[in-house]
Amino acid sequence: MNSTSFFDLVASITERGRDLLARRLTAIDPEHNAKSLIELCEALLSERGEASGLAQAAEILERYLSLDEAERIALFTAFAEKFGPNRERLTKAAKAWLADPQHADAGDLHYYSESVRQELFRRLNRAPGGTHALVGMRADLITLLPQNKHLTPVDRDLAHLLAVWFNRGFLVLHRIDWSTPAIVLEKIIRYEAVHAIHDWADLRRRIDSLDRRCYGFFHPALIDEPLIFVEVALTEKMPAAIGPLLAEDRTVVPLEKARTAVFYSISTCQRGLAGISFGNFLIKQVVEELRRELPNLTTFVTLSPVPGFMQWLQTAENLPLTEEQRAILPSLKEPNWTEKPEEAEQLQKVIEPLAAYYFLKIKRPDGRPRDPVARFHLGNGARLEQIRWLGDRSPRSLSEGAGLMVNYLYDLDDIEKNHEAFVKTGEIITSSAIKKLLKSDPKPRPSTAALPQPRG
Amino acid sequence: MNSTSFFDLVASITERGRDLLARRLTAIDPEHNAKSLIELCEALLSERGEASGLAQAAEILERYLSLDEAERIALFTAFAEKFGPNRERLTKAAKAWLADPQHADAGDLHYYSESVRQELFRRLNRAPGGTHALVGMRADLITLLPQNKHLTPVDRDLAHLLAVWFNRGFLVLHRIDWSTPAIVLEKIIRYEAVHAIHDWADLRRRIDSLDRRCYGFFHPALIDEPLIFVEVALTEKMPAAIGPLLAEDRTVVPLEKARTAVFYSISTCQRGLAGISFGNFLIKQVVEELRRELPNLTTFVTLSPVPGFMQWLQTAENLPLTEEQRAILPSLKEPNWTEKPEEAEQLQKVIEPLAAYYFLKIKRPDGRPRDPVARFHLGNGARLEQIRWLGDRSPRSLSEGAGLMVNYLYDLDDIEKNHEAFVKTGEIITSSAIKKLLKSDPKPRPSTAALPQPRG
Amino acid sequence: MNSTSFFDLVASITERGRDLLARRLTAIDPEHNAKSLIELCEALLSERGEASGLAQAAEILERYLSLDEAERIALFTAFAEKFGPNRERLTKAAKAWLADPQHADAGDLHYYSESVRQELFRRLNRAPGGTHALVGMRADLITLLPQNKHLTPVDRDLAHLLAVWFNRGFLVLHRIDWSTPAIVLEKIIRYEAVHAIHDWADLRRRIDSLDRRCYGFFHPALIDEPLIFVEVALTEKMPAAIGPLLAEDRTVVPLEKARTAVFYSISTCQRGLAGISFGNFLIKQVVEELRRELPNLTTFVTLSPVPGFMQWLQTAENLPLTEEQRAILPSLKEPNWTEKPEEAEQLQKVIEPLAAYYFLKIKRPDGRPRDPVARFHLGNGARLEQIRWLGDRSPRSLSEGAGLMVNYLYDLDDIEKNHEAFVKTGEIITSSAIKKLLKSDPKPRPSTAALPQPRG
Amino acid sequence: MNSTSFFDLVASITERGRDLLARRLTAIDPEHNAKSLIELCEALLSERGEASGLAQAAEILERYLSLDEAERIALFTAFAEKFGPNRERLTKAAKAWLADPQHADAGDLHYYSESVRQELFRRLNRAPGGTHALVGMRADLITLLPQNKHLTPVDRDLAHLLAVWFNRGFLVLHRIDWSTPAIVLEKIIRYEAVHAIHDWADLRRRIDSLDRRCYGFFHPALIDEPLIFVEVALTEKMPAAIGPLLAEDRTVVPLEKARTAVFYSISTCQRGLAGISFGNFLIKQVVEELRRELPNLTTFVTLSPVPGFMQWLQTAENLPLTEEQRAILPSLKEPNWTEKPEEAEQLQKVIEPLAAYYFLKIKRPDGRPRDPVARFHLGNGARLEQIRWLGDRSPRSLSEGAGLMVNYLYDLDDIEKNHEAFVKTGEIITSSAIKKLLKSDPKPRPSTAALPQPRG
Repeated sequence: MNSTSFFDLVASITERGRDLLARRLTAIDPEHNAKSLIELCEALLSERGEASGLAQAAEILERYLSLDEAERIALFTAFAEKFGPNRERLTKAAKAWLADPQHADAGDLHYYSESVRQELFRRLNRAPGGTHALVGMRADLITLLPQNKHLTPVDRDLAHLLAVWFNRGFLVLHRIDWSTPAIVLEKIIRYEAVHAIHDWADLRRRIDSLDRRCYGFFHPALIDEPLIFVEVALTEKMPAAIGPLLAEDRTVVPLEKARTAVFYSISTCQRGLAGISFGNFLIKQVVEELRRELPNLTTFVTLSPVPGFMQWLQTAENLPLTEEQRAILPSLKEPNWTEKPEEAEQLQKVIEPLAAYYFLKIKRPDGRPRDPVARFHLGNGARLEQIRWLGDRSPRSLSEGAGLMVNYLYDLDDIEKNHEAFVKTGEIITSSAIKKLLKSDPKPRPSTAALPQPRG
Repeated sequence: MNSTSFFDLVASITERGRDLLARRLTAIDPEHNAKSLIELCEALLSERGEASGLAQAAEILERYLSLDEAERIALFTAFAEKFGPNRERLTKAAKAWLADPQHADAGDLHYYSESVRQELFRRLNRAPGGTHALVGMRADLITLLPQNKHLTPVDRDLAHLLAVWFNRGFLVLHRIDWSTPAIVLEKIIRYEAVHAIHDWADLRRRIDSLDRRCYGFFHPALIDEPLIFVEVALTEKMPAAIGPLLAEDRTVVPLEKARTAVFYSISTCQRGLAGISFGNFLIKQVVEELRRELPNLTTFVTLSPVPGFMQWLQTAENLPLTEEQRAILPSLKEPNWTEKPEEAEQLQKVIEPLAAYYFLKIKRPDGRPRDPVARFHLGNGARLEQIRWLGDRSPRSLSEGAGLMVNYLYDLDDIEKNHEAFVKTGEIITSSAIKKLLKSDPKPRPSTAALPQPRG
Repeated sequence: MNSTSFFDLVASITERGRDLLARRLTAIDPEHNAKSLIELCEALLSERGEASGLAQAAEILERYLSLDEAERIALFTAFAEKFGPNRERLTKAAKAWLADPQHADAGDLHYYSESVRQELFRRLNRAPGGTHALVGMRADLITLLPQNKHLTPVDRDLAHLLAVWFNRGFLVLHRIDWSTPAIVLEKIIRYEAVHAIHDWADLRRRIDSLDRRCYGFFHPALIDEPLIFVEVALTEKMPAAIGPLLAEDRTVVPLEKARTAVFYSISTCQRGLAGISFGNFLIKQVVEELRRELPNLTTFVTLSPVPGFMQWLQTAENLPLTEEQRAILPSLKEPNWTEKPEEAEQLQKVIEPLAAYYFLKIKRPDGRPRDPVARFHLGNGARLEQIRWLGDRSPRSLSEGAGLMVNYLYDLDDIEKNHEAFVKTGEIITSSAIKKLLKSDPKPRPSTAALPQPRG
Repeated sequence: MNSTSFFDLVASITERGRDLLARRLTAIDPEHNAKSLIELCEALLSERGEASGLAQAAEILERYLSLDEAERIALFTAFAEKFGPNRERLTKAAKAWLADPQHADAGDLHYYSESVRQELFRRLNRAPGGTHALVGMRADLITLLPQNKHLTPVDRDLAHLLAVWFNRGFLVLHRIDWSTPAIVLEKIIRYEAVHAIHDWADLRRRIDSLDRRCYGFFHPALIDEPLIFVEVALTEKMPAAIGPLLAEDRTVVPLEKARTAVFYSISTCQRGLAGISFGNFLIKQVVEELRRELPNLTTFVTLSPVPGFMQWLQTAENLPLTEEQRAILPSLKEPNWTEKPEEAEQLQKVIEPLAAYYFLKIKRPDGRPRDPVARFHLGNGARLEQIRWLGDRSPRSLSEGAGLMVNYLYDLDDIEKNHEAFVKTGEIITSSAIKKLLKSDPKPRPSTAALPQPRG
């Protein structure tokens, strides 16, 4: 069965419809791109014919790509203002509901309050490449949002639709290796967000070694685009640092000796799908996949960064430190402190307990840990297992996380229990090693921010 | 890349989550299936963890299958009554909207009025086979609806979600032939709705001849289930009857002589997707596909039944007939009239103009033709081309459509124009032959129903 | 990557070359098919150009199909007589070899003695569908051989080439189930040689049940053609009869209870590949495949017919029977003896030991067992495990094997050892149960054939 | 259907057989690799069991990889001396043949003279990866051959077997583009023999532009290994130089303007398949493929190097040059002459006619052109169309071909005719432009080699 022809087919259908459109569109002033696009969108919504509809959708998506930022804002603003719900019908439905909230059908209210742009997006999705184009449109929208708060309802609708379409029931897991098409691999290089992949040789070391694995989620309508992927190293023991794991000259671990799977990098790929989470699902599936392939694996663990630690440290008040301890902190700002054994050792004694304190005691208003990586893994049911001093000596890690790394442990027998405890009571499941670190803390005392804040 | 493993993976994840559930579920009274299912649905909605969520979803879908009709009604009733929108938040939003309909965000109203069951359906979809199960659930719902009007809001929500998921941007066209997996072919046999396929040998004649084609739409999450399919015969000329087309001993038309593609059967397969139209889209894609494969094809035409003709004839008033003509009609009710040349000839003279009248003059309140097949093809932009006397001599066709068949012509250059005329003004584009038939009609005169109505 | 286009491409290349050929071929008398085909073969061999060569090869294979039997014999006779080795060069090489057999290169002799028809077959194979056509040609040849001994050298060459091409390094194992294309499944129905498959419903029971498996070997150039396949039933215990295994209303064995895999049918599909064995290889791979999928399986066993038993019994002399025992044998020829408990019981007491005797004592001149099924499985390293009285009550089984069936056991730890013992010393590894049966035999005594021989 | 599992399966079969072997092999002295390998080969040949045979084959291929050069020579020498034909049987057959050459079956002679190593190679091929390993073995053999003439019979047998297995009827054509697995693409980078591909970005420019194509032949048993591939540029006109075609900043030709397909690089990939030609076949298939995709293409042409020109020029006697012309030739040896317009122009006037003379007049003893690229394309039926002065300014091209390039034209209507003329009479079909160049030659006069010959 030949599915590729589908896109060609649609392409010819739209070709034909486009001729018809071309005749109709000549009246539109080409100078006013956004304006003419809006008219095209209105035509698409009014149109009930499939063929011209497909052509119009393809036309809109194609012309959208040539808009500059101002034009995009104009278009999205029209989406916000002109393509909302039918206000008349909605008012009527709202009154009916309030008159008899017990018996009236809330469905009327729901469907009348649906903004017209949702139908617009659904029709745009019919065009070949429509899903891809809409994900791109949302990425643009996200960029514009901070300066254009009035576009929030548009984003809400588009995000809702994408969340429905990218329901994980539709996602497929693929192993990514040296047999994967280059068109996907180039995106792995581009999207790796944690430990940058420098070139194709670097990529190959990460996906084409016997002791490495990489898996990603894909959507059937976006077969060349990974949505999220995770890189895995197979090791004998739980790793303490990322450097040796990625070293060019490392020794490959024979599969029969591998006991540990290390999730050392998870990257999302589609900015346009921000807010739609796949990650927890991915990790669990990969764990199952690995267990099946390699029954000898006993430990599933991350080697994760602590990206918010330094920012917290720089602004935190009431750090649980003695004056003496506090006096050591500024060394973190010195260049090359990692190469001065004495300073580093002193810092370790202060920072490790502070990190335990940061993970276990510092919460957001909603009661969840301040650290985003911790929220993710603890929310998935992982256990905070080990804090790794100088686990990552890269400049970025030093400046964001004091070089710390963390092992979060995925113990399959406890995932559910941990997850429920975390969700219901906010409890953070952690190892005794980290609890001990915390106990070694002196009592918190008043203290101003320990480090000079960065300016600008 | 290996995508089949996905389902296995999910299966093992849910296995694990199910253990956890099993412990929790023991308290639920096994006698009260619907009740316990409702509790399980509530748990799924309250749950924020992925793994247990997947297991719960799988559990719900599995247990749903064992419900009897009464239990299903009970479950759907709970969906209608308990899983509606949050009334409190909705009331507040409705008031806010009415207070300031110009500026307030209708989005609040929309998202607060979304019933909880929509989220429930989305979570159920995550389970392996979830989409398939939800399509089946909707099929059940449609069956129950006439006797259980209070379930309409549930159907509306489920239908909405399925329409979003089965957006044609996600559908793929596959040719169906003798290389297609048996699991798909058996469904072609089962779902053929127009001219029944008797067995595998009959199927093979329809899909494995050089001058036959079959195409269907598939959804990536339902790879073994055609959604809709069309059967095509390649012929030299526009065909006048279905019998010779399907005859076991017919002569195969050499491809180099084929000039006409005949769409002689279109069948939808998924009752649970009722109301979500794919058909017009399918025909146009197949036309493009055939044009590319066989550039010599010049004519794309249907050979369609007229399923509503006899019912109309039996109940119509004011038929445009002379007394003499009316006197002939009862012959249609006689057995074997088709084999009596004289009677048949007389009937033809009366019925053909009547059929033209039926197609061109008999409209529904919305101005569209009464005949459903005519509505479909004319709505797609086809032209009413020929009425075929005794085009189908099967008992069903004789009793439903007086043995008539119709050619609807898809002329690619006119599809858009025809479609727009039909949609905007209700105009039915037809051939001069059929116009002439109509003119041969005597003026309509008062007349009671021409045929005795069936009882029961 | 799109491999299907390959055949289309070749088709158009040959189309073009064929034009050229058409002009050349007009001189050939169309009445003399074989003669003109022979000329075409000579042209193909003399030709060094690829394109016209492809067209010629396609032409030859196409025209071959329209030959009648006499024409085929004429063609093959030409292959035998005209397309042998170059006799002059060969004579020279033979003399050189005999003059100095120690130092001369035997390669010259080998390559000079290669018949020209081998090159012809290799060139024919280049045409699209060439491999398939050559396999068909060999099937025809095998049919003609008994009456046309002079074609033996042609068969030897073609068989040699096919054996090289169907080297098992090129074969791929596929599971055959309800997702397999119909074009393959219809061949499973057609080629099943042991227990006939009656129709598609019967096929489905054998391949689409949870406790059934089917696997086949395929060659990449013959993707729609299974070469050999095996049908497997998963059971709790070693089965004693085929009837219950294939019964329409049997209870499906849950996978978690399955401990035994029963190979109850092995069929080869391509008569043209006769003499090229795949079977032993297939069984071992399927065993490995099943062990991986279902680690709980402990027993791998066949349920096999004894097709040569009755023929032996009818012609054997010196059967180890008492007079009394011999007197019972004719009951086997009575209709419905299986339904007469008393007679059947008496027969069992005589036949079971006789069967043990047949398997363990009756050898061919080469020291191997007379029974072909026994030779196959024992040669693979299986153990003769159980003789099953009335294991198959079908008329064919009763007339060929007295209704007996046999379990051959594949014990993975012993396969090699058994195989080597069998190959080197002819030893038949068997269970103590069968050994005991043998001991129960009275000493063989002079006796004429026990049963009246069939006439004609 | 899942074919990948095949290799895993075989792997486990061989695993099991290997245990058995391990016990047997302990007696073999590990120091004498070649010797023990030879014993293993003898065991493989004597063995009739499949499972241990597979394990032995896998073992031999694995251990072969660790042999050093001396050990390989020892092994191949054993193949030559010990694994020849059975001399006794052969002598007998040779005598029988000579006694009655008319009636005796030459087949006996053929099959008795087949060396045992052919059966050995066939058995080795059964192991997973066997075909790949044997191709590698032949590559080694080719390297050793010049210094080890006694291995020629081994090479002849292995080459023969590979030619039979790589019969083009088994080859599949794949388009190679950015969707091709990286494991194939890396080989395209590695094997490009004409215009080196520098890195992945360079590769992408060659295969992922709208106006570029790349196609290769693959064998089903070597799916990750292209056998030969051709790179194609789509252009408006016949190109005169390679530089602009490969320039990083070139303008992409819109498909609707493309009229010419330029085959600018053909590379074979498998040294082990040397002597088995695929190239002519590849070009013709690619022409057909392109014609189908892009019916507007009218011209199919190469842009080819002239790799033997300078070597010929340096050694040729009797060049058809005047003294004056001869005096100009040494400029070719000056550095940077291409940047000196005056010198270059003078050279062009001499070299272009010389090139025409080289192509049309300089033949090998067998009457074919001396230039290997010319032999290939003319033998395929192409026409010598244009000589391109300074078509390639790369150092390699300057030193080998004086910077010349050539367009060979593939005119589909003439390919057959040209090919036959070339094969039968040695006639070189060429354009009038080149004929005119030749006529501009002065009569050849005695002359010694025009250029100082390189030393060392």
